[in-house]
Amino acid sequence: MTTKHEIRRGAYADSVILMKVQKGLAGLPGVDDAAVVMATPANKDVLRSTGFDLTGIDVGADDLLIVVKAADEQTAAEAIAQVDGLMKQRPSGGAAGFRPKSLRRAADMLPDASWVIVSVPGRYAAAVADEALALGKHVMLYSDNVPLADEAKLKQKARASGLLVMGPDCGTAIINGVGLGFANRVQRGRIGVVGASGTGIQAITVAVHQLGGGISQAIGTGGRDLKEAVGGITMIDGIDLLAADAETDVIVIVSKPPSPHIAQAVLNAARTAGKPVVIYFMGQFAPGQRLGNLAFAQSLQEAAALAVAPQGRDGGAEKDGNNKGYLRGLFSGGTLAYECVMMCQAVLAPLYTNVPVGTAQPLADVHASQHHTIVDMGEDVFTQGRLHPMMDGSLRLRRLQKEAADPDTAVILLDVLLGDGAQADPAAELAPAIAAITQARPDIAIGIILIGTDSDPQNSDGQIDQLEQAGAAVFRSVDGAAAMAIGQLAAVTAAASSVAPLPQTFAAINVGVETFHDSLQAQGASVIQVDWRPPAGGNDKLAAILAKMKGR
Amino acid sequence: MTTKHEIRRGAYADSVILMKVQKGLAGLPGVDDAAVVMATPANKDVLRSTGFDLTGIDVGADDLLIVVKAADEQTAAEAIAQVDGLMKQRPSGGAAGFRPKSLRRAADMLPDASWVIVSVPGRYAAAVADEALALGKHVMLYSDNVPLADEAKLKQKARASGLLVMGPDCGTAIINGVGLGFANRVQRGRIGVVGASGTGIQAITVAVHQLGGGISQAIGTGGRDLKEAVGGITMIDGIDLLAADAETDVIVIVSKPPSPHIAQAVLNAARTAGKPVVIYFMGQFAPGQRLGNLAFAQSLQEAAALAVAPQGRDGGAEKDGNNKGYLRGLFSGGTLAYECVMMCQAVLAPLYTNVPVGTAQPLADVHASQHHTIVDMGEDVFTQGRLHPMMDGSLRLRRLQKEAADPDTAVILLDVLLGDGAQADPAAELAPAIAAITQARPDIAIGIILIGTDSDPQNSDGQIDQLEQAGAAVFRSVDGAAAMAIGQLAAVTAAASSVAPLPQTFAAINVGVETFHDSLQAQGASVIQVDWRPPAGGNDKLAAILAKMKGR
Repeated sequence: MTTKHEIRRGAYADSVILMKVQKGLAGLPGVDDAAVVMATPANKDVLRSTGFDLTGIDVGADDLLIVVKAADEQTAAEAIAQVDGLMKQRPSGGAAGFRPKSLRRAADMLPDASWVIVSVPGRYAAAVADEALALGKHVMLYSDNVPLADEAKLKQKARASGLLVMGPDCGTAIINGVGLGFANRVQRGRIGVVGASGTGIQAITVAVHQLGGGISQAIGTGGRDLKEAVGGITMIDGIDLLAADAETDVIVIVSKPPSPHIAQAVLNAARTAGKPVVIYFMGQFAPGQRLGNLAFAQSLQEAAALAVAPQGRDGGAEKDGNNKGYLRGLFSGGTLAYECVMMCQAVLAPLYTNVPVGTAQPLADVHASQHHTIVDMGEDVFTQGRLHPMMDGSLRLRRLQKEAADPDTAVILLDVLLGDGAQADPAAELAPAIAAITQARPDIAIGIILIGTDSDPQNSDGQIDQLEQAGAAVFRSVDGAAAMAIGQLAAVTAAASSVAPLPQTFAAINVGVETFHDSLQAQGASVIQVDWRPPAGGNDKLAAILAKMKGR
Repeated sequence: MTTKHEIRRGAYADSVILMKVQKGLAGLPGVDDAAVVMATPANKDVLRSTGFDLTGIDVGADDLLIVVKAADEQTAAEAIAQVDGLMKQRPSGGAAGFRPKSLRRAADMLPDASWVIVSVPGRYAAAVADEALALGKHVMLYSDNVPLADEAKLKQKARASGLLVMGPDCGTAIINGVGLGFANRVQRGRIGVVGASGTGIQAITVAVHQLGGGISQAIGTGGRDLKEAVGGITMIDGIDLLAADAETDVIVIVSKPPSPHIAQAVLNAARTAGKPVVIYFMGQFAPGQRLGNLAFAQSLQEAAALAVAPQGRDGGAEKDGNNKGYLRGLFSGGTLAYECVMMCQAVLAPLYTNVPVGTAQPLADVHASQHHTIVDMGEDVFTQGRLHPMMDGSLRLRRLQKEAADPDTAVILLDVLLGDGAQADPAAELAPAIAAITQARPDIAIGIILIGTDSDPQNSDGQIDQLEQAGAAVFRSVDGAAAMAIGQLAAVTAAASSVAPLPQTFAAINVGVETFHDSLQAQGASVIQVDWRPPAGGNDKLAAILAKMKGR
C-alpha cells in the first residue's frame, strides 16, 4: 500500500465538486482511499484521524490537497491524473446552463428574485450578503465561519431596509412552500416557525406534517442570532412577520437558550404577537407550561404537538394589559413564591425577590419592594423566633397594606394555604383588608393562589367565597395567577419591526453550493445560479486592493 | 402615642404562645400595636420595618422582647402587665393534659409512636432528633436553622438504622393518611410524593385531590436534602420506600434543582423504581418530556396532572438494561445531537460530547470517543472547507465503523435527515454498513432518528425499510431513540436502601409547636406532647456542662 499526494496552491473549488472528485477517485480499481479537500487545519485533523499520514506535507488553508492511498505507486499516480477530468464534470442540474458571473447581473436576469442564497466559504460570505442587501434582496446565508461582528452589521442593515437575513449558518428554511438549503417537503398549513437551529426546524416541520398540520413559513435565524452582539434581530423580526401574516395561526420558536436579556425581548415579541406561540428554548427551564398565549415545550416533538393540538390555540389572542405599574407578590409558601418568580421573570423585568431564579434579581431589602417584587415571607429571615406566616399572617397583612399604599402597585398576588397546621380562618383576616384595598384602590388587581381542599378544616369553598366577595380573583395554582398578573401589566414596547410582508411567490439567486440551485429547481422555483469565484482567485491581499479601487 | 418595652433576659417561650400573647396585647383598648418576640437580629429588622423604634434597646437573641405602642404611658404599662397572665393561657387542645418532660418518657407512654415531630428552635433541634433516632423513631424535623453538618449526620445515622429523617425545615408530610405539620386533607390513593419543598407537596397533593386522584404517602425531605453535603439521602430512601410500597402506583418527585451529581443519583433511583415517576426539578430544564418510566413536569399543577392522567402510567415498569457498555451517538444534525445530549446526560454518566449541556463534559478529542459519547459531526471543525455530513456521509461512515470495532460500544445512535439539499439516498450508504455491524456485533443496538416525510425526494418509507432490514431500530424523534439507548444500558447501581416499610398505623410524639399536636389529634391520630424546655433554660454554656456530665 502506498500513499501519494498533490498540492494545488491557491486553487478553489466548490465542496460539492470536491466531494464528487473524491468519490470518483476512491471508486477507482486498486484505490483504497482518497481525499480531495481544501487543506484547512480542521480538514488536516480529519484526514489524520481517518488514517492519512500527512507528515512532511507542507500545505495551507488556501491550497487544494489531493491524497490517494492505493495498491501501488502507479495506480495512485493514475488516480491523481484523473482529477482534472472529474473536476470538469458539471452536475446534471440546470445550473449547467448559462451562469452569470455577478450577483448584479443575476438580479438583472431574474428581477422577480426576492431572495439570495449564499453558501460561499465563510470569509467571503458577508461581502456577498452585503451586496445582496444593497440590491434589496432578502438573504439566506448558509455559510458558516462568518465573523459575529459581520453578522450584526448585516442584520442591522437588513432591518433598516425592511429585509431579512437568515443566518449565517442557516441550514434550513421554508419560504412560500419552497424548501431552502436542507428542508423537508411538508404540507402547507397555518403553523409558522422561527428557529435558530436548522435541524430543529426540520424536526419540527416534519413532526407537524406527520401530526397532520402544515407550515406557512419556516424562518431560520442562524445559531448566533440570539447572542447579545446580534440582539435576536432575525428572531424578533421573524416573529413580527408571522404575527402579521394572515396565513399563520400559530407560531413556534426554537433556539438554544438565549442570553436572559435577549430572551425577554423575544418573549415580549411573542407575548404581543396576538396568536398562540409555542416556545422551545432547548436546555433552559421552561417558566411553566402555559403563560397566556405562550406555551413552553420540552422537546422538538412536543413543540410540534403543542402547535398542532387544538389546545395549542386555547391561549388565544390575549391582548397584553396597559398598566405601567408593578407586580407585588407576598407569599407564605416558599415553593409557590419560587414558581411564581420562575414564571414571571420570563417576561417581567426588572423583577426583584428573595428567591431569585432566572433573570430575577435579589432584593436589596426584603422589607421593601422595588419595581416588580415577589417576596417569600416564609424565608428564615422572617421566621427566626417567630411563627411561619402560614400560622401567623400578621406580618404579611402589614406588608399588604404597605404595598396597597404604594401608588406604583398595579397587581398584588398572595397565597393562602389551608390545611392542618395552618391558620384556622385566613380569609377572615385577609378579606376585610382586601375589601378595603379594592375600595380605596380599584386600580389594583388582587390575585390569590389558594391551596386547599373541600375536606380541609377551613373548607376551601367558604374561604374562596370570602376572598372573592372582598374583590380578589382566586386561583388554584400559580400558573393562572401569574398569567393574570402578566396579562394586567403592559409588555415592554419592542422596537417596531419594519420587515415588509414576504412576496407571495418565491424566486431566488443562488451563490455557492450548486445542489441548492438544483433542489430549488426541482421544487419548481425560479432560480438562477451565479458562477461565483473568490475575488482575486482567493488572494486576500489582491482582493483588498481591488475592493479599494472599486471604492468599497 | 407612646412606646414602652420590657426585656426578659434568657426567657424562652414557644412561638405559638408568643403569637397569642402578641395578638392579646394588640387587641387591648388604647393599644395601637404590640410585639412579643425572641429578639433575634432578624426579628429586630422586622420590628423596625413595621414601625417600631428600637433605638437604645439593648437586647440579644436569647431575650424575650415585649414592645407596646399605645395612646399613653399608662395604657402601655397596663398592657405589658398582662403578659404573664396571657402566657399562662394554655391552648385548648388535648396538649393541656399531662405532658411528659422527656422524649424517653413520652416513648414509654406511647410505645406505638413510630414518629417524632420536632419543632423546637433550630439550635436545639438536632439533639432532639438524635435522641428520637436513638429511640428507633422516624423523625419529622420541622425546625429550620439546623446546621447542614448536623443534617448530614442525622440522615446518615437514620439510614444506618433503616429510619427516615424528614427535614430539617420539613413543613409538610402525609403519612398513612395523617397530615403532619402543614398538610391538606386529601383523598387517600395510589400516588406517592417525595418533596424537598413543603408548599410544593401541598400544592401537588391538593391538585391530585382536585383531579380525582389520591395520595398514598407524601414524604418531605427538607430543602437541603439534595445538596452535596447531604447527598439526597431522604429523597433516595423515600423513592425506594415508595417503589417497594404496594399501595403506591405512581411516584412524584419535587425539588429545586439538585446538584448535577445528586440529580443523577436521584434519577437513577427513579429509573429503577419499576413504576412511573413524575419529576419536577423547579428551575432546571427538563431533559425531554418522557424518558422511559420518567416524565418531566414544568409546574406543580402539571406534576399533579401527569401523576393522575392515565398516560402518566404509560411508561410502565420498564426494567433497565444490564449492558455495561457505552452509548456512541454520531449526529449530522446539530439540534438533534444537542437534544440527545440533553436527554441522555440526565441518567448516563460520564457523557462526553462536542455540544455539552447539563452534566455532559467536553470531548478531549472530537475524533475519538470516550465512555458515553455523542458527537455532532456538523460542527465547524468537521465542515470547514468540506461538505456538511447531511450531504456527504463518508466521514461519519468511517467513524461508525470505528465505533463498531470498539468492544466497549453497546449502543450506536445515528440521525438521518431527508429532504431537499440532503444526500440523495442516505440509506443506500448506511444500510450495508449497519448490516455488517449487526452481523459482526449482534450485541450492539443501533438506533436511527429519521427526520423526513413521505413527500421528500428520498421518500421516508423506503429509507426506513432499508435501515430496518439492515437491523437498525428507526425512530421519528430524539425522545424514542434516547429512551431506547437508556433502556439498553445498565443503571448505575445505587447504594441499597435499607428503610423498612412504614408501619400501617400512625402514632407520634410531638416536641415543640403545640398546634401540630392539636391537628394530629383532630385527625384522629394517637399523639403525645412533650413539655419541652431548652436545656439549662437556654444557657448554652451550662447546657454543654450538663451534657458532658451526662457523658454525651
